[in-house]
Amino acid sequence: MSFSPDLLVFNDAGLIPAIAQEAESGEVLMMAWMNADSIRKTLDTGRVTYWSRSRQEFWVKGDTSGHVQELVDFRFDCDADCLLVLVRQTGPACHTGRRSCFYRAVRDGETIELSTPL
Amino acid sequence: MSFSPDLLVFNDAGLIPAIAQEAESGEVLMMAWMNADSIRKTLDTGRVTYWSRSRQEFWVKGDTSGHVQELVDFRFDCDADCLLVLVRQTGPACHTGRRSCFYRAVRDGETIELSTPL
Repeated sequence: MSFSPDLLVFNDAGLIPAIAQEAESGEVLMMAWMNADSIRKTLDTGRVTYWSRSRQEFWVKGDTSGHVQELVDFRFDCDADCLLVLVRQTGPACHTGRRSCFYRAVRDGETIELSTPL
Repeated sequence: MSFSPDLLVFNDAGLIPAIAQEAESGEVLMMAWMNADSIRKTLDTGRVTYWSRSRQEFWVKGDTSGHVQELVDFRFDCDADCLLVLVRQTGPACHTGRRSCFYRAVRDGETIELSTPL
């Protein structure tokens, strides 16, 4: 069946969450948001493109930092209200300089850091 | 530092997205939502507990289906507005009977199915 963003379910702001996972290692890197146009750009260009809620503009991952995400596979879930993009990540995905944004864990009631900036 | 859900950033509905990843294989299984109390229950019981937006009640994953998620690690991201729970999943995570909810991919403009119900 031919794909269109119209098949997806967006929230009231016209956005859908997108989980980025490193294709090779399976590491979950980050979660950000896309709108219908950023989905089209992602699929058309092969460069993962989010919608920045704070700046209200396209966020072509890595355009400023060089830490680009090359699209490997574009998936969506059973309810069509969440995306999973498999990527090849150049450098750190996180603005803190860490590989993944999910660098904090809760263990025995304490918050610990699992990684340091690259 | 001692952890509290107060450290997290919830949306206007008091919810935060939670990505469930199979601890062993790294497979991303699903995304659902938690509120502060479901986070406490998840950490206290070791059974992943979401907040059902449709039913407006706790959703102890697997309580009805038997397809429980045992918590292996509880993580959160740099902006503290997204959770990643590493789990041991019993049976399928998806209500369609598939292992993962992300069973559809877009390739060459077409939607394809990557897996069938277990």
